[in-house]
Amino acid sequence: MNPMTHAAHLFGPLFSDPESEALWGTARFVDGFIQFERALAEALAEAGVVDHTVASDALEDINSFQPDLTLIAENVVQDGLPVPEFVRQLKAHARSKALPAIHTGATSQDLIDTAVSLILRDTNARFEPQLAEVLSALDALTDTWGEATMMGRTRMQAALPISVSDRIATWRNSLATHADRLTALRPQVEALQFGGPVGNRASLAPNGDAVACALAKNLSLSNPDRAWHATRESLTDYASWLSVVTGSLGKMGQDLALMAQQGVDEVKFSGGGTSSAMPHKQNPVRAELLITLARYNATQLPAMHHALVHEQERSGSAWSLEWMILPAMVTATSTALRHAEELIQSIENMGQFAP
Amino acid sequence: MNPMTHAAHLFGPLFSDPESEALWGTARFVDGFIQFERALAEALAEAGVVDHTVASDALEDINSFQPDLTLIAENVVQDGLPVPEFVRQLKAHARSKALPAIHTGATSQDLIDTAVSLILRDTNARFEPQLAEVLSALDALTDTWGEATMMGRTRMQAALPISVSDRIATWRNSLATHADRLTALRPQVEALQFGGPVGNRASLAPNGDAVACALAKNLSLSNPDRAWHATRESLTDYASWLSVVTGSLGKMGQDLALMAQQGVDEVKFSGGGTSSAMPHKQNPVRAELLITLARYNATQLPAMHHALVHEQERSGSAWSLEWMILPAMVTATSTALRHAEELIQSIENMGQFAP
Amino acid sequence: MNPMTHAAHLFGPLFSDPESEALWGTARFVDGFIQFERALAEALAEAGVVDHTVASDALEDINSFQPDLTLIAENVVQDGLPVPEFVRQLKAHARSKALPAIHTGATSQDLIDTAVSLILRDTNARFEPQLAEVLSALDALTDTWGEATMMGRTRMQAALPISVSDRIATWRNSLATHADRLTALRPQVEALQFGGPVGNRASLAPNGDAVACALAKNLSLSNPDRAWHATRESLTDYASWLSVVTGSLGKMGQDLALMAQQGVDEVKFSGGGTSSAMPHKQNPVRAELLITLARYNATQLPAMHHALVHEQERSGSAWSLEWMILPAMVTATSTALRHAEELIQSIENMGQFAP
Amino acid sequence: MNPMTHAAHLFGPLFSDPESEALWGTARFVDGFIQFERALAEALAEAGVVDHTVASDALEDINSFQPDLTLIAENVVQDGLPVPEFVRQLKAHARSKALPAIHTGATSQDLIDTAVSLILRDTNARFEPQLAEVLSALDALTDTWGEATMMGRTRMQAALPISVSDRIATWRNSLATHADRLTALRPQVEALQFGGPVGNRASLAPNGDAVACALAKNLSLSNPDRAWHATRESLTDYASWLSVVTGSLGKMGQDLALMAQQGVDEVKFSGGGTSSAMPHKQNPVRAELLITLARYNATQLPAMHHALVHEQERSGSAWSLEWMILPAMVTATSTALRHAEELIQSIENMGQFAP
Repeated sequence: MNPMTHAAHLFGPLFSDPESEALWGTARFVDGFIQFERALAEALAEAGVVDHTVASDALEDINSFQPDLTLIAENVVQDGLPVPEFVRQLKAHARSKALPAIHTGATSQDLIDTAVSLILRDTNARFEPQLAEVLSALDALTDTWGEATMMGRTRMQAALPISVSDRIATWRNSLATHADRLTALRPQVEALQFGGPVGNRASLAPNGDAVACALAKNLSLSNPDRAWHATRESLTDYASWLSVVTGSLGKMGQDLALMAQQGVDEVKFSGGGTSSAMPHKQNPVRAELLITLARYNATQLPAMHHALVHEQERSGSAWSLEWMILPAMVTATSTALRHAEELIQSIENMGQFAP
Repeated sequence: MNPMTHAAHLFGPLFSDPESEALWGTARFVDGFIQFERALAEALAEAGVVDHTVASDALEDINSFQPDLTLIAENVVQDGLPVPEFVRQLKAHARSKALPAIHTGATSQDLIDTAVSLILRDTNARFEPQLAEVLSALDALTDTWGEATMMGRTRMQAALPISVSDRIATWRNSLATHADRLTALRPQVEALQFGGPVGNRASLAPNGDAVACALAKNLSLSNPDRAWHATRESLTDYASWLSVVTGSLGKMGQDLALMAQQGVDEVKFSGGGTSSAMPHKQNPVRAELLITLARYNATQLPAMHHALVHEQERSGSAWSLEWMILPAMVTATSTALRHAEELIQSIENMGQFAP
Repeated sequence: MNPMTHAAHLFGPLFSDPESEALWGTARFVDGFIQFERALAEALAEAGVVDHTVASDALEDINSFQPDLTLIAENVVQDGLPVPEFVRQLKAHARSKALPAIHTGATSQDLIDTAVSLILRDTNARFEPQLAEVLSALDALTDTWGEATMMGRTRMQAALPISVSDRIATWRNSLATHADRLTALRPQVEALQFGGPVGNRASLAPNGDAVACALAKNLSLSNPDRAWHATRESLTDYASWLSVVTGSLGKMGQDLALMAQQGVDEVKFSGGGTSSAMPHKQNPVRAELLITLARYNATQLPAMHHALVHEQERSGSAWSLEWMILPAMVTATSTALRHAEELIQSIENMGQFAP
Repeated sequence: MNPMTHAAHLFGPLFSDPESEALWGTARFVDGFIQFERALAEALAEAGVVDHTVASDALEDINSFQPDLTLIAENVVQDGLPVPEFVRQLKAHARSKALPAIHTGATSQDLIDTAVSLILRDTNARFEPQLAEVLSALDALTDTWGEATMMGRTRMQAALPISVSDRIATWRNSLATHADRLTALRPQVEALQFGGPVGNRASLAPNGDAVACALAKNLSLSNPDRAWHATRESLTDYASWLSVVTGSLGKMGQDLALMAQQGVDEVKFSGGGTSSAMPHKQNPVRAELLITLARYNATQLPAMHHALVHEQERSGSAWSLEWMILPAMVTATSTALRHAEELIQSIENMGQFAP
């Protein structure tokens, strides 16, 4: 939504990175749509809805298909989403003998939601090592500085001395909990979407559930009992998780920015930020960005909760709102984890010291 | 915060009820503080920090203590919270021989957070049957009307017919998931808070953990590894849960309000709301309130995520923000569950019918 | 919505006060409804819709009317609002000869929205002196300490020295702007609501506008061109104003909390908050509360913007959401102004000093 | 932040457009920085701080300067913003005799905030005709269909008939008010930022204000009394305006989506959206997107209010949060205006008709 925060030259590296951009880019979605249609063709045959030869023909045609992206772009506002034109092109490209195994029983939402699930699978596969690296960096920090003393502060006032390890533990334990929670959340959000036009798999009856089962297996996604076209709680829970992760990192950033103040002098970073007017300054840029990203995700989150008010069998307005919010929250979280790791690794001194 | 939505005569019953008011009222918190101090006196003895006779004396004095609420009210802004004056009064009331077992090792936050945990235990004990009743009402609805036909609608347009049971399933399955999740969340939020002035139980060393263990047992609360003065993720997760519950109910409310439209005519309620100007109207008031309460909780939620940026060992600003938000979200959720049950039970007809 | 933050003994004084409670209480709304019906009876006569004798009879009956609040409370969920039962009772109380001048041409929303306008008029009449007092306290602060030196800080790091007056100016100028803006906003929100059942004054045609004009004059409210049943931007703008006021006060609170840190020592308060565990501490409670109230109002504000999506001629769900939000924002703003004034007046020293 | 909503092929056209992308892109900011440095060189001479020949030399060097964007991108996280490296390069490029007129008295924030002001000037110059076109399209709609009858609906229930012009007036009047308000807001946000390192123009004393005055004139921006480094209310007010614009359009979108329902049949669009599974459907895509964009902006807005808690002379965390929010809100508003105009123009029938 925001060209200023994209991974361009001036502001992008503060907020994003090319890997995150690629995760949600055009190529990635097209690949997801293709994967879905391939897996569906096979699943239709496995469930006995079409002959295996028809599925083979369909796979051949899907494999040779190159969508006309310009034409899709021209139709997306008219249709409200890119899939109808994608499917029109795919069906026009396919031979008539292959058509019974192409898009049969599916609807646009099945392709988009499943593509998002595939993207989130890759996202989570990035988050897991990112979290592990931050935890490991915090452990190394504890090993080095944990026994040093610093001032415990409550209500912004000096209270009683604590150990540096006491403070680090408040950062670490939260993140360890979040890593565990991610493990539980993964199957919920790495889930097949398959419901057909109104979400009840009726056009494939009585084989709808069998096709779904095979389709999920082919895509290595979990297979919910029913389509979740209009019940979006899994994505909402995931968004809440993204925001608690950045919230916990924001607390660490806030603590470190306060510790770096002159007169407090409880942390020293290598290579702090510089100023165009005051070259002597060492600004705790990454610590501040962790606060920014925490408040950003906290701000975005309610949209995913408003989007639960998803009327009838499919709400164009609530669903589109997710598209504006979720990728941005994922990107902010990934960026925060990157900044957190670099911030921790830049710590040169911790605990009370003479400035 | 809002006298208009309190359980007074004009607007209160739309948004609250006397039970919810009582849950978070003055008497309830004072009772929680007293429970904490009693359980602490016993725990100090059980952990060998004080003699059992000292603890008995303390219990006797705590039992006979009546705080001067007017004096607490006069000091609360000065202190930022009611506990310092409460403890001053309790210590002045107690005999000197009892003092070693009164508030020893504790801080204000231990009392307030633990009192909130005790309130949430009762809250959850209300939510469980409330959720069960809504689920059961939905099952009854499915039994009666599930096989009727209605129009499946996507993007606010008629798509293909579905069964009433298809629509009800989208409401029911979400709520069933939320009921399961509550079971997992309960020990996280029904948790002892005990850390002392800067959260590390240092003043009781080496007995701090033993006192915490006994204290949690005495209060029948779970016993987290460490104090969570500055790590508030459990409350944040709980707030997210509250908002997904009202979000799911909001979808049901939105669906029912749309179904009740003239020209759609897919649901009929007994006793709809009336109008001062048009007595013939039957307004789907409770359905609309479910949408209102969903948007209310979605609105409140980010404050709990901003409050994760809880600086140092205790943030007066972040912690106070929780006090303004969490009870309001609990109340909204309880009210939504009440309206939901009554709304479902008022359904007289479902599926397409001649108006 | 939140009994914990009400003006009760334990937490109330942090967040509210009896005057704010009274502004939005039951008595106040009933008084507003009565004022409306009186002014309407007179306006109907002034516009020639009824005879003056009928209006006199109506006034007599309205003056002797005492609503049965218990019965209203019993009907409010059924009706979605308290006015239908209020009007039923009033009409039952009135003599038949008075009825043509009672509630004629009006609808429930006319009464409630106008009652809110009357409350906001009194609210604004409180805000004006409150703002003036804070501005005046800041001027006194500048007079006393303005020429002292303190460290200018950017990105939480010492930059270059500034004068105390430089810092105070950032607080003062924002509030002076807000005071000016309030003057412009007052007629927008202190506005008659009068539209009848579907907002177009059709039942009084061709006298609808004349009745509205007389009614506004009788109530000393501004008279918008049309009813604003479904166009709520004035209230939204007002809510934005409330949130910028608390936002600016939050910046002052954040600055003062940072200045009060040990090692920074740029402000000293008399009578700071105390702690149950560390009696030596002087906590900047009111400074922290200003941050809390700023984040509270920032959190509430989007609900007023979501409520702009107010479908058709009257949205029960969007309108009810305003009731849950606006009074709470007004109360938070009034409380923040009170804390701000007391905080400024408690300053004993400003600028760099030896602690 | 969100590659999915960018103006790429699959989803971009729903949410953005190339003009909006360009407004906030790298080239645009670099151009703003260059404009600032040019105007500053001239202003320094005009205020007598440097000789006119020095300013001429500086202009010559600035004109021939091409920043190395790759190097800027490499330094942005370290510095927290792109300006320090930009200025380093510019100074290295300039001849030493020109240096006294380059960046003298300025700080990074002066360049970035002023560049944003220049961008907002162009943004507003787009909004004005966009608003005028929507108003004019609504007038045309009133001319064609205004006298037709439709059902007035309150609380989602049929109430009494109204004219189509009554309904359109609720959309039109709000937008007309917003157009007027924009006129008042323009000088507030199209404003010079100039304060130097800690915002008080001290390094140019006693010529600071004279330089600011000349600088504002050279850039055709308004000249606030003081730098607004830490007082961000103008941007917050502007963000509130953006959100009321999309909120009002969201009401129109919600009304039209409800009017387009089968069984209600009060509006008919040409060229509605299609479905991959149900080619017969005509989905009111743009009406739904107006709701989405309204809820998007309502969601973003509180971040701008949280950013008012901008500590000290410059908050890296609060300021960076604006960068993540404001351009996205501007883009959403521009997109909503575009969709609104197209939606209105696609109306083929309005008022009750036989489907």
